[in-house]
Amino acid sequence: MNSVPRRAALMAMSREEVPPDLRDRVERAVRPIWDPRWTARHGTRPDVEILVTAHTDTDLTPEHLAALPGLRTILTTSTAVDYIDSTYCRQRGVSLHNTPDYTGSSVAEHAIALMLAVLRHIPRLDTAARSGADTTSLVARELSGMVAGVVGLGGIGTRIGNLVRGLGMSLVYVNRSRREHPGARQVDLPDLLAAADVVFLSLPLAAGAGPLLGPAEFAVMKPSAVVVNISADGLIDRTALAAALTEGRIAGAGLDVIGDPARYADLPNTVLTPRHAWYTREAVRRRAQTWVDTLQGLVEGREVHRVL
Amino acid sequence: MNSVPRRAALMAMSREEVPPDLRDRVERAVRPIWDPRWTARHGTRPDVEILVTAHTDTDLTPEHLAALPGLRTILTTSTAVDYIDSTYCRQRGVSLHNTPDYTGSSVAEHAIALMLAVLRHIPRLDTAARSGADTTSLVARELSGMVAGVVGLGGIGTRIGNLVRGLGMSLVYVNRSRREHPGARQVDLPDLLAAADVVFLSLPLAAGAGPLLGPAEFAVMKPSAVVVNISADGLIDRTALAAALTEGRIAGAGLDVIGDPARYADLPNTVLTPRHAWYTREAVRRRAQTWVDTLQGLVEGREVHRVL
Repeated sequence: MNSVPRRAALMAMSREEVPPDLRDRVERAVRPIWDPRWTARHGTRPDVEILVTAHTDTDLTPEHLAALPGLRTILTTSTAVDYIDSTYCRQRGVSLHNTPDYTGSSVAEHAIALMLAVLRHIPRLDTAARSGADTTSLVARELSGMVAGVVGLGGIGTRIGNLVRGLGMSLVYVNRSRREHPGARQVDLPDLLAAADVVFLSLPLAAGAGPLLGPAEFAVMKPSAVVVNISADGLIDRTALAAALTEGRIAGAGLDVIGDPARYADLPNTVLTPRHAWYTREAVRRRAQTWVDTLQGLVEGREVHRVL
Repeated sequence: MNSVPRRAALMAMSREEVPPDLRDRVERAVRPIWDPRWTARHGTRPDVEILVTAHTDTDLTPEHLAALPGLRTILTTSTAVDYIDSTYCRQRGVSLHNTPDYTGSSVAEHAIALMLAVLRHIPRLDTAARSGADTTSLVARELSGMVAGVVGLGGIGTRIGNLVRGLGMSLVYVNRSRREHPGARQVDLPDLLAAADVVFLSLPLAAGAGPLLGPAEFAVMKPSAVVVNISADGLIDRTALAAALTEGRIAGAGLDVIGDPARYADLPNTVLTPRHAWYTREAVRRRAQTWVDTLQGLVEGREVHRVL
């Protein structure tokens, strides 16, 4: 029997979202209140010291957080913390913890899946195979001899670089600072856009910055080029992309869309996935493991990674 | 001006199928009769010495060939020659030439595209992204840490082996004779089926042999395993595959179907393409280049590759 009173933690998620073995650890570490719809309800809960939150479309405003007057700690199961009001946290001395580094190779591998789905017309061939439609016009492209251009050689960009090299493609990349990558060449964005058969975007959207790819960028790309975006939607000017695809100034796009993917549904030669790049069994498990470790560390008073 | 009378060649294809520069070479080498529907017509053409044929569903029977009494040479633009009656050719001294080795990396790369499309649920996510359907159940799998099993380490199997290793997967393979592959291990089929997360079939269907994968084989595979077939449809027992997929004894299949792909349309967790593995711009070009070279060699009396 545990004689130490466990601290109350509001879990803004359903109990079923947590794998059973990790759920047991959560229930031993804290007194959990499972309430996935908490942000919609606004009821005051003075007993709650810890808020565990999964990133949804709802921002956590000062009004939401004020409903938890005893709050000491926020733990988000996502990497991003920008949906949580940091000013409120600072003023009230609420510590803020995120869940980093859980995506492993999942996002980079999804970028490769999108590239191949576009170059190989996989969704259209699959539909045509089932209906018997003619597919003569759906000629694919061979990777061998192609140039991949990776914009942003951070953790995910580096993994994409390794995978495209493993598939026999050449690699050029753009990065703000100097970076080395075996067998590859760092270039400027205009050089990359002119050389690449496939352009991968793997970089954060700088606050206040406009799109990275707009009319001027699509104009210098090869008409046979394909764009793959597993980063923020805002990196690509949607109107310019629509024009480039419709007028054949580029050949296709594979987009893992963070916002509403239906916004891209009318664009020809696209393969769309609804924010699934990270969503593998392995990453789901690593994420849960990581935030449960953090939660346990917090209640046991160990030093844990924190954002604020 | 060419004073040598050019030999008449019946081209069982449309003029537009041949890239313009190669078409010019054909028209300088022979007197071409473009007639894609020749096999359906059966008209006698005593002037034809050369038949250039693209493999279709129609077998070239003795009846078809007898309509060309002056025939000396058959050149097929495919690798397969089994649709042409070889007995007739032998009896009449008609030489037979095929078009080998044009697929390059296209087929192996398509196998990778099918694998990723299945593991990542690409066609279903693309459809769901456009309609707004819920995709929570479509959890993907990470390649990193997976075992690929390649059955048949010939030219295409070896390329598949290189590509999966380049994507960070481990590799085991089955081959009739001893083969070496860097960083990989040759095993028996039962061992491969038990170990592999993805099973690739890249081998010819032996004449008269039954399917390679039937109920017994699906029974020993991992429930999470995926099958990719870019070889003959007959390598897989369709009924056993349907049962294995429906009952969750394996997780999915990516099939480049040579026959009617609609036969597989009711099977869950499949990605189907209608014989498109070879069909890239690069392979189309290499194929045309190869048979036009053969045709030119034939009329110039050079020694060229022949089957009969």
